[in-house]
Amino acid sequence: MRLTPAGELNDRIRRLQAEMAGADLEAVLLLQNADLFYFTGSIQQGVLYVPVSGEPLYLVRKEFGRARMESGLRQVVPLKSPKDLPGQLAEHGLPLPKRAGMELDVVPVETFQRFARIFPGCEMVGATHQIRTVRAVKSEYEIGIMKDAALQVDKVCRRAREVIREGLTDLELAAELEYAARKEGHQGLSRMRGFNSELFYGHIFSGADSAAPAYLDAPLGGLGVNPSVGQGASYKKIKPFEPIVVDFAGAFDGYLVDQTRIFCIGGLPDQLLKAYDDMVRIQNRLLEIARPGVSWGAVYDDCFKLAVEMGYADHFMGNKGAQVSFIGHGIGVEIDEYPFIARGFSDYALQENMTFAFEPKAVFAGLGAVGIENTFRLTADGPKHITFSDQALAIL
Amino acid sequence: MRLTPAGELNDRIRRLQAEMAGADLEAVLLLQNADLFYFTGSIQQGVLYVPVSGEPLYLVRKEFGRARMESGLRQVVPLKSPKDLPGQLAEHGLPLPKRAGMELDVVPVETFQRFARIFPGCEMVGATHQIRTVRAVKSEYEIGIMKDAALQVDKVCRRAREVIREGLTDLELAAELEYAARKEGHQGLSRMRGFNSELFYGHIFSGADSAAPAYLDAPLGGLGVNPSVGQGASYKKIKPFEPIVVDFAGAFDGYLVDQTRIFCIGGLPDQLLKAYDDMVRIQNRLLEIARPGVSWGAVYDDCFKLAVEMGYADHFMGNKGAQVSFIGHGIGVEIDEYPFIARGFSDYALQENMTFAFEPKAVFAGLGAVGIENTFRLTADGPKHITFSDQALAIL
Repeated sequence: MRLTPAGELNDRIRRLQAEMAGADLEAVLLLQNADLFYFTGSIQQGVLYVPVSGEPLYLVRKEFGRARMESGLRQVVPLKSPKDLPGQLAEHGLPLPKRAGMELDVVPVETFQRFARIFPGCEMVGATHQIRTVRAVKSEYEIGIMKDAALQVDKVCRRAREVIREGLTDLELAAELEYAARKEGHQGLSRMRGFNSELFYGHIFSGADSAAPAYLDAPLGGLGVNPSVGQGASYKKIKPFEPIVVDFAGAFDGYLVDQTRIFCIGGLPDQLLKAYDDMVRIQNRLLEIARPGVSWGAVYDDCFKLAVEMGYADHFMGNKGAQVSFIGHGIGVEIDEYPFIARGFSDYALQENMTFAFEPKAVFAGLGAVGIENTFRLTADGPKHITFSDQALAIL
Repeated sequence: MRLTPAGELNDRIRRLQAEMAGADLEAVLLLQNADLFYFTGSIQQGVLYVPVSGEPLYLVRKEFGRARMESGLRQVVPLKSPKDLPGQLAEHGLPLPKRAGMELDVVPVETFQRFARIFPGCEMVGATHQIRTVRAVKSEYEIGIMKDAALQVDKVCRRAREVIREGLTDLELAAELEYAARKEGHQGLSRMRGFNSELFYGHIFSGADSAAPAYLDAPLGGLGVNPSVGQGASYKKIKPFEPIVVDFAGAFDGYLVDQTRIFCIGGLPDQLLKAYDDMVRIQNRLLEIARPGVSWGAVYDDCFKLAVEMGYADHFMGNKGAQVSFIGHGIGVEIDEYPFIARGFSDYALQENMTFAFEPKAVFAGLGAVGIENTFRLTADGPKHITFSDQALAIL
C-alpha cells in the first residue's frame, strides 16, 4: 500500500500555512475526506487542526490505529468527542484561535454549527480557496501517481476497441470498461467536490444520447439508466456511423485522471468528422498558449473564440441552451480542482505543475457529441500529456 | 424508463406537509439529489419549494426540459438564478415564509448562506427529521422496485458461488461481482446521506481483512486498495478455511437493498461456524419482536442483549474498540434512512411498511467476520424478506 511520504505532507502543510498567513487565518480545521487524505495521508474520521505556524494536529475519532499507521504526520492523537477539541489543543500548546478557516463549501450546516459552538469566540470563515490553491500545484510524487492512473485509463481505451460492437448497449459497454478499470486497480470511488455532484467511473454513451443535456456541470451528460442518476450510460444500443463517447476517469492510489476518446463503427457523418478535427485544433491552441502566468480565463477566452470562429457558437461545450462556460478543470484528488479553464477567471494565473483536464467538445442535438479530453501537467514550455492514449478518432 | 407516478409524488408531498404542519414550518426548500428524486421524480438541478398547504413548485436551473419530462409534479418551472426565487413564488401565489425548513444535515454552509440572503426575514431550521420520517414508510410501488433490486443482488450472490476460488484477490472478486450487478442494471451510483460517507457497490473481503476496523460507521470496513478510500476490497488473496464476506448493495431505479452472505472454501473454524449460526439466531429474534409500535431502540436493546448473552460482548458489530451501536438501518433511496435499529432510539416507533436492513455480525480480530444481512419490510405480522438469497453459509 502506497502511503503518502512525510516530506510530501510537511510541504503541503507549509504551503497551506503560507496561504493562511496571507488570509489572516490563525488556524484551519479540515474535516472532508479529500482534504484529509491530501494533508494527512488518511481519511480516518476526525479533524486536522492546522495552526498558522508550527505542527498540525490530527485528532482522530475513528479509527485511530489506522490513522497512525497511514499518516506521516508527527502528531496523530485520539479524539473522543469534538467537544474535547479545545482541551486537546491546549494540551498541545495551541492557543484557541480567534479567526479560523473551515471548508464551508462542503461542510454541512449542522456539522458547522457543532464546531461553531465548540469555539464560541472564534470567527469562522471559508478556507476553501486557500486549500484549493495549495492542492492545485502537484509534486513529482503526485504526478507519478497520476501517470499510473493514466495507464489504467489507457487499458480501458484499448479494451473499448475490443468490445465495441453493433447491438451492445451503452450500459453493457460501461460495465465492460468499469470491469477492466477495476481489474487494473481502480479504487472504486472517485471524488467530486461540488454539492450534489456525483461521479461515475465514466460517461459512456453513443449517438443522440451523447448529446442529451443533463443536470450536471459538464458538456455531456447522458440519460443514465433512470432519472434518479440522470447521467451516464443508458440502455441505448450501439449502431454504426454514430459517435461512441468513452469519457473515463482513471482512479488510482487516491488520484484521478480524465480522458475522452471517440469511437465509431464504420465511420461518422462529415459534420462530426470535421468537428472532431476542429476540437483537436482547439487542444493544439491550448498547447500553444497555456504557460505559467497566463490567466485561466485568458486560455478559456482564446480557445472559446477559436471555437466560435470555426462555427461552433451553438455547439461548443454543449448544445445551444445547455452550454457550460468552461473547457477544462483541475484534477487530482478530486475532479473539480483549481484551475478552472473557464469564463471569468482572468485574475487567476496558471502555475507550473498545475494538472488539469482539457475537454473541447462539440454537441449536436439528435446527432451526438465528439471531442477530445486529456489530462495535462503544465510546464514552463506548456502543457505536457499525462493521459496518452492514441488521439485518432477510432473507426472500428 | 420508470418514472415515478404522479399519485406517488402527491401522496409523498401530502405526508410531508402533515409533518411540516406539526413542526410549524410554512415551507420547505429541498435541494439534495436523493430528496429531489423522492419528491419530484427527478434530480435536475434546482429547488423544490413545498408550502405547508397547496401545490409544490419545482424550480429548475438545469435541465428544465428533462425535469418536465421526468417529474410528475404539476408545477415545474425554469429558474434562472436562486435570486429570482421570491419573485417566482409571488407569481405562483406563494407568500414569502417566515419560518422554513431546509436539509441542514447535508446542505453546505455556503449554499445555505446564499439561500438565507435570498429570504432575509425568514427563520431557517432543519427539516431533515420530517423528510426522513416521510421517506421511511414505503409504498407498494417503492417496495416493488426494491424487490427488483433484490433480484439483482441475488444474481450477484449466485455469481460469487461461480467465481470464488483460492488465490483470487478480494479486489478481483469485487470486480467480478460489480460487473455482474452492472449487467443486471445496477445504476452505478448508490447514495448515503451522512457527511463524508462514501458508498461502494459492496464490501467484499476475506479472512482477517474482514475484521479490519475502519473510519466508517459500519460493523465491517475492510482496508480498501489504498488509504484514500480506506474501505472495501484490497489485494489480499482468498485462502481456504476463512470467511469471505459479500456485503452488497443492489441499486435499481433509484432504490437500494442491502444483503450480506458469507462464503468459504472448504469450511470455517468452529468458532466462526458457531458465530454464524448465532447471528442467524439474532435475526430470528428480530423476526419475533419487530412489530409496528415497538421502538427502534427496544429492538436494538433486545437483540444486543441476546448477543451479549451468547458471549459476543467483545465481538458484536465490530471487534472490541471499534464496535458500532446499531444493528440495522433504514434503506430505500439512501442506505442510511430511518429507522435506525440502534442504541438510544426508544422514542421512535416502527411503522408498517418501513424497510430496513438488519445485519447482525460478529468480528474476531485476526480471524475475520461472519454474519448475515437482509433487507426487510415491516408488516403487522413482523418483518418480511425483500432480499431472499439462500441463507445457509456457502461452503464451496
